[in-house]
Amino acid sequence: VRRLWPEPPAGEFWIGDDTAVVDGPPGKLLLSTDIAVAGVHADLSLISLEDFGWKALAAALSDIAAMGGRARHALIGVAAPRTTDIELLYRGLAAASAELSCPVVGGDLSTADQLMVAVTVTGEVVNGPPPVYRHGASPGDRLLVTGPLGASAAGLRRLRSEPADPGVRSEPADAGGDALVEAHRRPRPRLAEGETARLAGATAMIDVSDGLSADVIHLAAASGVGVRLAAIPVAVGATLDEALGGGEDYELVMAAADPAAVQDAFADRGLRPPLEIGLCTADPEERSFEGRPLISSGWEHPWELGRQ
Amino acid sequence: VRRLWPEPPAGEFWIGDDTAVVDGPPGKLLLSTDIAVAGVHADLSLISLEDFGWKALAAALSDIAAMGGRARHALIGVAAPRTTDIELLYRGLAAASAELSCPVVGGDLSTADQLMVAVTVTGEVVNGPPPVYRHGASPGDRLLVTGPLGASAAGLRRLRSEPADPGVRSEPADAGGDALVEAHRRPRPRLAEGETARLAGATAMIDVSDGLSADVIHLAAASGVGVRLAAIPVAVGATLDEALGGGEDYELVMAAADPAAVQDAFADRGLRPPLEIGLCTADPEERSFEGRPLISSGWEHPWELGRQ
Repeated sequence: VRRLWPEPPAGEFWIGDDTAVVDGPPGKLLLSTDIAVAGVHADLSLISLEDFGWKALAAALSDIAAMGGRARHALIGVAAPRTTDIELLYRGLAAASAELSCPVVGGDLSTADQLMVAVTVTGEVVNGPPPVYRHGASPGDRLLVTGPLGASAAGLRRLRSEPADPGVRSEPADAGGDALVEAHRRPRPRLAEGETARLAGATAMIDVSDGLSADVIHLAAASGVGVRLAAIPVAVGATLDEALGGGEDYELVMAAADPAAVQDAFADRGLRPPLEIGLCTADPEERSFEGRPLISSGWEHPWELGRQ
Repeated sequence: VRRLWPEPPAGEFWIGDDTAVVDGPPGKLLLSTDIAVAGVHADLSLISLEDFGWKALAAALSDIAAMGGRARHALIGVAAPRTTDIELLYRGLAAASAELSCPVVGGDLSTADQLMVAVTVTGEVVNGPPPVYRHGASPGDRLLVTGPLGASAAGLRRLRSEPADPGVRSEPADAGGDALVEAHRRPRPRLAEGETARLAGATAMIDVSDGLSADVIHLAAASGVGVRLAAIPVAVGATLDEALGGGEDYELVMAAADPAAVQDAFADRGLRPPLEIGLCTADPEERSFEGRPLISSGWEHPWELGRQ
C-alpha cells in the first residue's frame, strides 16, 4: 500500500520515521485539522469508503483555500474497526491528494469501534497580501460566492431517494442529478479561487462547510459587521433551503471593497467569476436575506470549543 | 474555555479562523500525527480524562524528540461522545502544552460513539546536524537509552492492582509506586535529550513507544544492521518483561559511534547521561539480548500501513 503515496523530493523524508521531515514554507505556515466521523459526517451506506477518504481530505484543504493559501502537505490519522477496508479508504485519500496536489507525508492508524479520520493539512501563502481571515470585512464591502450552492445537500437527498421539497429549482429531464451526487461524493475545494481572491484584495473569506447562512454569519460576527444578502445562487436541482443550510459545498464566500476587481482577476485566471450575493453593513446586528431575518440553519457544532 | 489556550505572538493567528497562521520554521519542518483511542490506548477507568489528554500530546511530542527536534505547535482533533467532559480533556492537553512548551494553535471537535484524540505536532531543527532518523545506524555503533524502562507498564499494573510477575526488581518499602503510576499517567517526552543527542552526533534514534524490543528492532531494520543488547536498565518496581515490551516509556534509544561524546554532552547540559545497552552489528539478521533471541514483544499495530 506504500505505493499509494508518492516519493518525497531530495532532502525530505515522508512516511516511515518518527516524523515527516519537509522543507519549511518561505513565509507563513497554515495549519488546520479536520475530523470526519462515519455516521456523523457521512453515511457509509450511501457513499463509499473511497468517497469518505476523498471528502475528508477535500474538507481539510477547503480551509487552506479559505485563507487564500496553497496546499503543502497532509497527515492522515485513522481510527477504524478491524473490519474496515483501510486500503479503500486510503485510495480515496490518495486520489484527492494527487488531484489536489497535496501529498500525504505521514499519519497514524489505530483500531476503534467507529471509523474516524483526522486530516491535518499545511499550507503556505505565496507572494502578495497576507492570508485572508474571517475578520477583515468592513461595512460597504460586497459579499461574493464562488459558485451556486446546495448541490451537496441535494446530492445527498438523491442518494437517499428523498423527494425534493417544494421550491426545488427546475430540473429539466433530470439533468444535473449525477452532478449533484458527484458534488456530494467528491467535493472540490476552491484552492485556485481562494488564492486569486487573496491576490485581488478580498478583505475576508470563509468556506461554505457548515452552510451558507451559518458561514456568512461566522464571517460577519468575526468582522463585526452586519450582513444583508440579496441573491443566493442555487445549484440546479437544489432547493433554496439546501443552498442556505445544506453545507459541504466548499464554495468560498468573500468580502471585497471592489468586487469587480475580484471578478476580473478570476476571469483573467480562467476561473468562473464569483457571484455577488449581498453586502456588509454598519449595523453589526443585521443578518438579513431579501429583507427577512437570516437564520443560521447549517451544521451545528456540538461544543463551541476550539474548533476551526 | 478559550482561556485554556495562550494568545499568539504578533503576526500569528491561532484558534478561531479556518486555519491557524504561524511563522514558518527557519529550516526543516517536522510533522507528525498520533491517534489515541479510549479503550485502546488508555483505560479511562484507571486514568482521568486529564491524564488521557496529557498522554496524547506527550506521545505526539515524543516523535519530535526522537528526531532531535524542538516542538513548535500542536493541533488537537477530538471525536467524543456527547457525555464526555471535554473541558477536562482539554485541561490535560493544555497542561502538557504549557509544561512541554508546545502551544495548541488549532483543532476540530466532533461527536462520536468513542473518545478519540488526534494530535498533530510540528517541530523544527535548530542549528547543528540534520534530524536524526531511524535509518542512520552503522555496524559498531553503540546503543544507548535515556533512562530505565518499564515504569509506565508497571504503573498500569499497579493501577489495575495486579501482582507483579516473578522477577520484579526490589521495591524497598513500596518506594517508587507513585512514581510508576505517574510515569503511566503523565509521561514526559525527552525533548531536551533528543536535541542533545542530535547535536552530539547520534546516528539514529527512536522513542520507546511500542516497547524497547519492538522499537530497537524498528531502528535496526531501518538501518539495515543487527542489534545485540547486553544490559537493559529496568525501572525500580518494574519487571524485565515490562522493560522489554511495556512501551509508553517515551525514553529515547539512540545509536552513536562515540557514546562517551553523547554522554558528556548530556552531562554538560545537566541531563542524566544515557545508558549503554548494546551495539549494532554487521549481521542484519541479528537480534539478540544476553545471547538469546530478542523477540519483539511490544505493541502490535493493527495494520502496517503508513504509520508513524
